[in-house]
Formats: sequence, structure tokens, C-alpha cells
Amino acid sequence: MNNEHILKPALDYIPPDLVSISDYERYARHFIRDDIWAYISGGAADEHTLAENLQSFARQPIYNRVLSDFSTANTRTRILGYELDSPLLLAPVAHQRLLHPYGEIATAQAAAAMNVPLIVSTLSSVALEQIAQHAGQWWFQLYWQPQREDNQTLLRRAIQADARAIVITLDAPVSGVRNRAQRAGFRLPDGVREENLVEFATSVNTAAEGESVIFKHFMKQRPSLDDLKWLREQTSLPLLAKGISHPEDAKALQEIGFDGLIISNHGGRTLDGVPATLSLLPAIRIAVGKDMTLLMDSGIRRGTDVVKALAAGADAVCIGRPQLWSLAVAGALGVAHMLRIFQEELEMAMALTGCATIDAISQDVFADRF
Amino acid sequence: MNNEHILKPALDYIPPDLVSISDYERYARHFIRDDIWAYISGGAADEHTLAENLQSFARQPIYNRVLSDFSTANTRTRILGYELDSPLLLAPVAHQRLLHPYGEIATAQAAAAMNVPLIVSTLSSVALEQIAQHAGQWWFQLYWQPQREDNQTLLRRAIQADARAIVITLDAPVSGVRNRAQRAGFRLPDGVREENLVEFATSVNTAAEGESVIFKHFMKQRPSLDDLKWLREQTSLPLLAKGISHPEDAKALQEIGFDGLIISNHGGRTLDGVPATLSLLPAIRIAVGKDMTLLMDSGIRRGTDVVKALAAGADAVCIGRPQLWSLAVAGALGVAHMLRIFQEELEMAMALTGCATIDAISQDVFADRF
Amino acid sequence: MNNEHILKPALDYIPPDLVSISDYERYARHFIRDDIWAYISGGAADEHTLAENLQSFARQPIYNRVLSDFSTANTRTRILGYELDSPLLLAPVAHQRLLHPYGEIATAQAAAAMNVPLIVSTLSSVALEQIAQHAGQWWFQLYWQPQREDNQTLLRRAIQADARAIVITLDAPVSGVRNRAQRAGFRLPDGVREENLVEFATSVNTAAEGESVIFKHFMKQRPSLDDLKWLREQTSLPLLAKGISHPEDAKALQEIGFDGLIISNHGGRTLDGVPATLSLLPAIRIAVGKDMTLLMDSGIRRGTDVVKALAAGADAVCIGRPQLWSLAVAGALGVAHMLRIFQEELEMAMALTGCATIDAISQDVFADRF
Amino acid sequence: MNNEHILKPALDYIPPDLVSISDYERYARHFIRDDIWAYISGGAADEHTLAENLQSFARQPIYNRVLSDFSTANTRTRILGYELDSPLLLAPVAHQRLLHPYGEIATAQAAAAMNVPLIVSTLSSVALEQIAQHAGQWWFQLYWQPQREDNQTLLRRAIQADARAIVITLDAPVSGVRNRAQRAGFRLPDGVREENLVEFATSVNTAAEGESVIFKHFMKQRPSLDDLKWLREQTSLPLLAKGISHPEDAKALQEIGFDGLIISNHGGRTLDGVPATLSLLPAIRIAVGKDMTLLMDSGIRRGTDVVKALAAGADAVCIGRPQLWSLAVAGALGVAHMLRIFQEELEMAMALTGCATIDAISQDVFADRF
Repeated sequence: MNNEHILKPALDYIPPDLVSISDYERYARHFIRDDIWAYISGGAADEHTLAENLQSFARQPIYNRVLSDFSTANTRTRILGYELDSPLLLAPVAHQRLLHPYGEIATAQAAAAMNVPLIVSTLSSVALEQIAQHAGQWWFQLYWQPQREDNQTLLRRAIQADARAIVITLDAPVSGVRNRAQRAGFRLPDGVREENLVEFATSVNTAAEGESVIFKHFMKQRPSLDDLKWLREQTSLPLLAKGISHPEDAKALQEIGFDGLIISNHGGRTLDGVPATLSLLPAIRIAVGKDMTLLMDSGIRRGTDVVKALAAGADAVCIGRPQLWSLAVAGALGVAHMLRIFQEELEMAMALTGCATIDAISQDVFADRF
Repeated sequence: MNNEHILKPALDYIPPDLVSISDYERYARHFIRDDIWAYISGGAADEHTLAENLQSFARQPIYNRVLSDFSTANTRTRILGYELDSPLLLAPVAHQRLLHPYGEIATAQAAAAMNVPLIVSTLSSVALEQIAQHAGQWWFQLYWQPQREDNQTLLRRAIQADARAIVITLDAPVSGVRNRAQRAGFRLPDGVREENLVEFATSVNTAAEGESVIFKHFMKQRPSLDDLKWLREQTSLPLLAKGISHPEDAKALQEIGFDGLIISNHGGRTLDGVPATLSLLPAIRIAVGKDMTLLMDSGIRRGTDVVKALAAGADAVCIGRPQLWSLAVAGALGVAHMLRIFQEELEMAMALTGCATIDAISQDVFADRF
Repeated sequence: MNNEHILKPALDYIPPDLVSISDYERYARHFIRDDIWAYISGGAADEHTLAENLQSFARQPIYNRVLSDFSTANTRTRILGYELDSPLLLAPVAHQRLLHPYGEIATAQAAAAMNVPLIVSTLSSVALEQIAQHAGQWWFQLYWQPQREDNQTLLRRAIQADARAIVITLDAPVSGVRNRAQRAGFRLPDGVREENLVEFATSVNTAAEGESVIFKHFMKQRPSLDDLKWLREQTSLPLLAKGISHPEDAKALQEIGFDGLIISNHGGRTLDGVPATLSLLPAIRIAVGKDMTLLMDSGIRRGTDVVKALAAGADAVCIGRPQLWSLAVAGALGVAHMLRIFQEELEMAMALTGCATIDAISQDVFADRF
Repeated sequence: MNNEHILKPALDYIPPDLVSISDYERYARHFIRDDIWAYISGGAADEHTLAENLQSFARQPIYNRVLSDFSTANTRTRILGYELDSPLLLAPVAHQRLLHPYGEIATAQAAAAMNVPLIVSTLSSVALEQIAQHAGQWWFQLYWQPQREDNQTLLRRAIQADARAIVITLDAPVSGVRNRAQRAGFRLPDGVREENLVEFATSVNTAAEGESVIFKHFMKQRPSLDDLKWLREQTSLPLLAKGISHPEDAKALQEIGFDGLIISNHGGRTLDGVPATLSLLPAIRIAVGKDMTLLMDSGIRRGTDVVKALAAGADAVCIGRPQLWSLAVAGALGVAHMLRIFQEELEMAMALTGCATIDAISQDVFADRF
């Protein structure tokens, strides 16, 4: 396969000054071609949401507690019936062969080694069956296909390859105003394609001459509420919707039988101006009640961010861009190391906020905003 | 005509990295002479309002909605009895031959091609009749002339040339403390003059020796309330007042029969310290009720800005400086492309905020301020 | 006299790009020696108050009003019984020969030419009698001298030279942590001395060995409440206290017969952390009632700042550092031009906020904070 | 001893432009090796708390008062039964031989000369008995040792060497995510060791293979509530807990007999995101009542900071990093000068806020936040 778009081979060791997630971002810049960097790092429009995803964590203070009992401390949790070592998952991220010759396979190996669930994207650059061979627990992320039968095909393949949950992404019926990537002239290089979709018919513009392509083509291809009900009937696996920011959408999806939601603004990549997910969580948790599974992504870079997300109402968090940075810098080794940093920082954050278990993390860790 | 003040001829194509309104600003810098740049880009005094116009949009978050019905989605709206494809107009902007040899003619051609109403300035650098020949729907913006008959003359010419509405600007009886333009030594170059006014007598300073020129000359020349009532009687065309920032002024103008208002701080060019129009809209909408037509300008740079302005109470928005940037960069082609960017971004913003029609845009799109 | 400390002679014309007060600051940097610049520009400690003086104006929005009647518009006002053309005074500023060979004489000439009252500092570098010869209306600012008779001497001299009001400064019993000036090694150059004080005995440290110089020397030399009552009895001229930031101090001074107060944080030069005077005014106005004269200084750089100060409760404003900048750049001509900029900007600000007279300026001009 | 890690010998004079604590920081940069600088200056993770420690003081305004009686003004106070000249102490800071060949001895000499209590760290690089020989009043800071008898040994040594109070640090059971120091590759150089601990057994990791080192090793080694009760019984000296940020922890420690607390976020070095201690003080003061001794550290750089900390509820403040900067720049002379700056700035701040005694400092000095 053609890997010419890869600027510099991944390292086979971890440099000693690479000690945090932001160090991976800093290093990654040197391994990734400019246009690909613009594509993966950029957000929508003026990137206000992209910045706010980080700022929302930065300005939320937490208490240091010193007297809790840590004799049985651990980070274990139960998500949708599955026991996890830690409330960490890898978010679905497309096109990973942009960053590394093995792409999603390397990521899957690292996730398996670290016992962290991996959510595989519909737009993976390696066929899902191949990824599944290297993965531990994995879930399948579905981008709705215009033909219902194509969705059935994807579901059947995922279930056959032992996916443990299905995640349908709802917040990106159009891909957003990705100006940074556009200015850099990004397009998928020859060596990278969406391997799960090669058998499907290419999408044809359904807008008539002079009609809005956005309204008459893209918005017609996204799943209707009926499609979502139909999808619910296709599988008994846990079903989640990704990209929810409003409490009413959350409740509507709960009512038609969704098991969980991923609160997300797509890493700031679709609608610029959506609040950070940390801000969105409390109202959505109230709306859906304490039992519905709420995951979140967008902006998690620190163990303390995980604690804050859980305190705000999430059950677990999904890691997005750090996957790509660590994959580019050091392949499977990098992704595993990145996950270890998260695990150690999470333990440190729990130790210092006095939360000996995941259940002990509540809004009480929050102090008044700076 | 003398076009020596034009630094660089406009392009006859759109460069591939020119994908947003801010890209036009970036490009335009290279096509525009320093003093002219200072004049068109600058604001009053310390330019706090100029900055706030952009900041007000940047810090207002909006929700991404995922379950709305888009089967009959469109951007059409009705403004003062006119059906528009979209809630977009071109704001009155003076002296466009500063930017392009064809000036307002090129802008009018683009507006006509894109079916966007154009508001022609009293201070246009091409005679209004000539502009009208190339325009689609156009409105006439009136700067009050000291002699009532001169206003009558302008009105008559505009109506004869098929203007569909009259807009009188009230917020600039003095031109403001335009320090950036002053420091750059800007004055109208030889090749550019206010073509609609050449027949009128030059204004003579009415302040006596030692009296305030501002109070005794400029403030005497602006229209009194009686003048505005008189103006209302001169035409049955829709009549709007531009430059309103206070609810009481809005109500007073409504009471004497104005059909609409353009909420504006003149792009930050007159009184520094006026709030952004986004902040002003809600109280004015409450003051005048839901039926009065409210347009707004000052700071619209994104499709999401249009959605936010409408959510805050506007019926449509007017685009100012982006006209000039796109005109300088690529003439009529540039202005048309600029309008297409707005249209596409507006559709994208509506698609992602779950608003399938202009009427569906309400304060519900707003999330709590960052 | 020795003028070696003056870096560059003042201009005898106004450069065309010198159109605002901040332009004077920019120009002045090139006319003033580094250590003197540090002394006059610097504030106390980390200069938070210095910055806040400007920020407080920058973030306070105001409305543009378009329908007021301006037929009898003017900027006249009455302060302590004196008719002024405008609510502008020159604040007491020490050591003006640091900036220009003629020092306070040039400033006085400009003030007289522009009909603006001048407050002469006890620490002037020209004897008050000489300044008075060139001044129009002038007031005398008193720094309390340890010996009551020395204060009597100063008062007698001032009254004899036709001072129209007495201002005693209370906020600088110690000169504050002037780190910027200290780092620059500033001390008064040979050519500049405090001419009004040459006849008085040099102050002797009254603190015993090991005692606090601040508490046992400086704080013993400042006026007690009894001293202030005594001072009140020494003159029938209007008496003001300068440097008031707390409503209770304001009321206490009102009770012992002070006619007016200058709300001030000494231009951010004494206690770092004092709020901007714009923030202090409303509570002090409420405390002393509508009749007591309240002036203010610290941070006035624009005509709109004057309007904001008056809207917040001041009767007039005093201009400090801009005196020095304009004096250094263009001597008396510069100071006069600086005052003309303020007058024109004030008229412009009144015209655009719809305030035709000083009395019409009220809290109604304020919009909600950005 | 090996002092090769010291970049540049300390000065034996104070440069004239070294007039504030921040000047010591600026100077110190040139005396300290990069990795050591990263270790002492850095904070945890993204250093939000480190920045907030300074910002919290910067944005808290205070009033200038002009009429208070200062005839008996002084800075004396009583802390835990000890009369102090001033509400200033030197915080426990480890490893001072990193900065100066004499390390803690030089600091102790300066503290003794200035009559300021010194809190000696368990991790001092000079044996506590040696430090005690040069110190005036000193307290001992205890890092809990895994074996109770080792704590007894340390206590006995401290009491024998005349320590006047015991401070146990509770907020650093793990050392935090010290990324800046990690990136710089900091480790204790050969010439510096923890002299008080050389006789104790090296700590052995108690976590089993695959278990969390943080939970199963570090968190097991920190003192339990029972350990703290035991500690209380070991000494009749005043006992304080350091690193408290939550009112409930404060109350729990009060209930088991602690005499005082040091409100601290460890200079931003352990849990990133803890609020500034200035923000934490009011609620803790309310929780423990007016009689419990509350000290604070983290971010004190100015005399006004001391006033603000006391106004917010502290009885005295501890100075941390400025010790190290001044020690590196000018040894004992530097530390003494640094303390003199604090004393003079405190007197100046009291003089200008109208607080003639420490008891007079209350929340009344605060104005509304900028």
C-alpha cells in the first residue's frame, strides 16, 4: 500500500520528554504532513468550540481532599453491562492510515494490550474484520448509509466480527465548515480509502439543479426518526447515539430505546459554537435520569479531565485526537503509552480529589469556577 | 476615470484557499492601498465596538440538534412584502470605486446574479441610475441633505430608478473619531467622488467663529423629528431607519410610521463603545413587537452569525465590509462567491441547529454563554 | 537652568498623524529619557490599577441615540460656583520641567488659551507665583507639610497669587511601591527641584532606630482629621480632598466641611489594587448626595471617557498624564492641542449619545457591560 | 560537598534594580540550571493552579483609606501563642542546596536575622539539627513516613532541636503530574540529598505486579485518620496540617485536635485545578470558626497580597518560592532582603488601606472584583 503521505516513520521508543498528552501533540506535528495535520487538528469555522473544549476543563476548579479511605481504591466501572478496568474508551476516529502504515490495526493492538474498548469507525482505512482480529473489546460506529440494506450489511459484518455495541453518529449529516483543512487543500491521499464502504454504490447528488445540496442531498441522506427506530430493531446489542448536545434530543432517543448516548461536539469539527461537552453534561444527565449510559468526548487531555467529566454526569469518556497523535509518533507503542498516561493521571487525580472509586466521583469535587 | 489608487487588479478566479469570509479579509489586504485599508477596515477611536461586533458572536454558543425534519427545508423569507431567497442583503457601503474600477456596478451585478437585495448608498461612487441598471432588487440609502429639496431630488431619482425601499441613516450626524483613517492620512482620491451629490451645493459651515462646529454645524444639518415625519410623507415605499441602538428610539420611529429599522453600530465606525448589535437586538425586538421589520448589520462573517442574529430578533442581516473585501479581490465574481459562502454556511448552520426554515430560528438555538 | 535631562526639544508644530491622546503617548516615548518615562508612565507595584483605569472605560458600553434635540447644545457647566466652558480640568502634576524647559509655565499658557482650569501642584518645578502669571483660572494642590505654619505659608502664597480653590491630596502619605521608576533608577535630575518648598526645612526621619519608617515617620507627617478641620478654617476658598476611593471617607470629609472631592487612585501610582475611579463613582455619589462636587481623574483618554465619568456620578474630570505627554511633544502648543482633542471628542460623544448638555448626561447612557 | 549543579555563585550585594519579589524571580533565572529551574518553578500538569495563585490576588481590588489613626500602628501578631513581629513565615521548602551551597543554613540565618519563623522541611538538604543551630524560631514540617517509629524519630529530633510547632503535609501523598520538571529531566543531583532521612530504610513498592502503584503503594503510605490521631498524641507542641483546601477536611482535623491549618495548594505543584488559596480561605474560616489558626501559602508576592490573605481569613502567610529565588541570587543576604521587601510592602499596604494593626485587617478592605 501507498504510504507516501507519511512524513516520517513512527518511533520504536518513547522519548524521555514525552510525558503528557500535549507532548504527543507537540511531537506529532513533526510526523504529520501539513494538509493531514490541518485535517486532523482543525475544527469547524473559527474553531471556537475546538478551543472551548479545552478551556471548559481549564477553568473548572476541583478540590484536593486529604482524608478519604483508599484501602480498596480502583478505577473499575461497568458500562452497558461490560466490566471495564477504567472509564476510558477510544473514540471512533476515521482514516487512521493517514497517520501510520498499519492504521487502525496498530491502534487496536494497543487498545487490546491496555484492555481499553475501541470504537471502530465506519470510515476506517482498514476493513473492520481485520481490525477486529487485533482488537480486544470493540464497538462499531455507524455512519448511516442512504440505503437501509447497506446499514444492515455493515451491522451484520460488525456483529459477525464480535462488536459488542453499536454507536450511530448523528451530529454530522454535513461535514461542517472545515476551513482549516480546506485551506490546506486536504483530500484523502491515494493510499488511504474507506475500506468498509468499497462495496457500496457511490452516493449520487439528489438535489436538482439550483436546489440546495445541503438540504436536498445531505439532509435527505441522514437517518430519520423512523430509520433510528428501525435500527433499534435490527440488533439486541447495546445501541448508542453519538453527537448529542441538547437534553430534548437525548430524551427522544431514550424514548425510542437507545441504551446510551455519547455527548460530543465532534471534537469541534462540525458546528462551530456548540458548547464544550463538559458544559452540556449536567442538563442532559438530569434529562435522562441516572440510569442511562452517558459517554462523552471532545477535549479530554488529562486525568483530571476524566474526573471532571464524570463529576459532570458522564459514565466514561472517549479519547479522540490523542489516538492519532500517539499513533503517528510511535505506532501501537505510542497509543499504549498514551493510554497508560491517562490511566496513571486518572489514578493520581482520584488520589488527590479523594475519590477512591469511580462511583465516588460526584459534583462534590467541583469548586466554584475561577 | 482615474484608478491609480487601486494597488492591484482584481483576480478573475477564486483561489482554492479562499474558503471563508475571513479569507477575503486576508486576501484583500494585498489588493488595497494602506490609507484606503485604514479607512474601510478601521473603526472609531479605540475600536472597542469594532472588536465587540465579532466577539459578541464568538462567545454566544448554540446547540447542535439532530432530530428535526428537513423534508421541506429552505432559507426563504419575506421582508417588507418582498420574497427573498435568503435573509441576506448587502448593506449600503459608500465609495466602492476605492476598491474596484467598476465599483458599485460590479457589486450590483453580483447581487443580481445571486438574487440578493442591494442597498445603494447616497455616497456611492457611481450614479445610482447606473447602478440600478445592473442591479436586481435594490433599495436606496439616504444620507439626509441640509436642504429638504435635495432629499426630494434624491428620493425622486431613486424611485424613478426602481428602488424598492428607502433607508435613512441616523447614527452618523458626525462621522466619528476615525483615528485609524486619520493617522493613515486617508482622503478620497481624485478618481473617486460621490456621484449622486455632484449637483448639490457644497455644505457651508454654519457655526460662527468660536462656536462648536459639531453642535452648530453638523448637528444642525441632521434630520429633526419633523424632517423624519416629512420624509415619511414623501413616499409610500417601505421606509427604514438605520443605526438604531436604543429601544426608545426604535419605538419613537415606529410611532411616526417607519416600516423597519436596521439595528447597527455602523460597523463600529461612529461611536466607539456602542454594544454589538447582537446584544442590542433582544430588547429592541421586545420594544417594537414581533411585527416590525428589524434588519441588522455589523460583524456578520459566518452562516452561524446569521442564525444567531435571527435568533436574537432580526428578520434579516446586512453584509457590509465583506462586500468591499470580495470586490477588491475578485470584482463581481468575488462578491458573488462571497454571497455563495454565506448562503452555504447559512444552510449548514440551519442543518446543524435543526432549523429547517427561517421561521424555525428562535432563541431556543442559544445555549448558555461560554 | 539645566535641561540636560530633556532628550529632544519639543516640536513647534503638530504632526498630521497625531490625532488622539494615545498618539501623544506614542510620540512622547521618543522625547522622554527612559528613567523619566518610567517615573511618569509607571504605576505602583504590578500596575494592575494602572491597567484597570483604562479597562474600566473600555468595557463600559454606551448607547448611540439619534433623536435628541441639539438646538441649544453646549458643554458648559458650573463647578464650585465657577462657570466652565467644559467639564475638563488639568490635574495637579508635579515636576513638569522634567518634560519641557518651561515646565508648568507652558502648561499654564495652554490652559489659559483654552480656558481650562489648572490645578497647580505643591511639587511644581516652577514657583507657583510664576505659574500664576501665565495661568487663567487656577487652583492650588496642597501636599500637607509636617509643620502647620508651612501649610499656612503655602496657602497664603496661593491665595495671594489668586488661586480659586484648594485641593489637598490625601491618598499618598507614602509614595507607594513605584517599582518601575525604582528599576529605572529614577531620581530628580539636577535641573529640576520643587520650587515651592525650597524655603522649608528638610524633613527629618522621626522613626527611632528599628522602628518602622512608614508608620513612625511618614504616617505621622500626614494630616490628621484635626489638621483637616484646621485647614478648613484657614480659607473660605472652595476646599477639595483628592484621592478618595471609599464612600465612608467621602462622607467624613463632607461632614467637616469639604466642598468637593477628587475621586482618584492617583493614576495607579500609590496603592496597587484600588479599583478604577469609574467603578468607585456611583457608590460615592450615593453616599454624598447629588449636591457635593465630585471630580475624578485616572484614565481619561477619550471624549467618551468624559461622558462615562459624568454618567457615573462625576461633575467634571481632571486630565493627568496627557498633560505631560503633550508638553514633552510640543510644549504649550501640544497641551493646547491635547485639550482641543478632548473638547472635540467630548462634543462628538455628546452628539452621538444624544446628550445636548452636561446636565443631560446620566446613567441612561450606559448599556449592559460587554 | 558537590555543588556542580549551581550555575553561578550568589551575589554578595543587592543590585539596585532588584526592588520587588518578581525581580528576584527574574534574576534567579540566571543563577539556576534549567532542570532545577523547571523543578522549582514548575507546577502540576498544565499549571492552571500555578497561574491562578497569582491571578486571584491580581483581580481582587482593595480600597485606599485616608482617615485612619496610625498613632500606634504596628504589624505584630500572635500565632499559636508566639508573638511575631509580622504575620510572615517561611514555608517549608525542600532541597535548598539545589540553589546555594549552604542551602537551608543560609535561609535560617536570614530568617533569624529578620526574626521570621522558619518551617524546616523533612526533605531539607541539610540535617535539621544543623539548620536549628542557625535558626531563630523554627517549626518542623513532617512528611509522614511509612513506619510510625520513623515519624517518632523525626519528631524527637525536631523537639530536641527546639522546634516550636509541627506541621504535617497532607496534600501530596503522590507528588503530582510534574510535567515541566519531567520534561527537563530533573532529578536530585549527586551533591544534594534528604539529610534527615538517610538513616531510614528505602521505601519498597508495596503494589503487586499489575496493581496500581498509586493506589496500592503511595496511598497506603500516607497517614490514615488513625495515624493523625496518633500523631496528635505524640506531642504537646502546636500541631498543624498543611495542604487543606476543603472546609470539611478542615473541620475533621479540628475535631481530632489540630491547632492550625495551612491552607495551600502546594504552590500549584500537586493537583492542577485546585483553586487559589485566596478563594478557599473564606469558606474554611467560616467552617472552623474565628479561633482556629489558619495560615496560607501559594502565590504571596506582594505586601498587598498579605493584606488580602488576612482579609480573606488567614492569620498569617507563608512565603515559598521567593525563598529559593532570593537564596540563589544572594544567599542569606538575599533571603533577608526579600523578607525586608515583604515587611516594607506590608507596612505600605496597611498604611494605604487604613489598617493600623493586623487585627484591623478585615473583609472591609475588599472592593468588588474587577
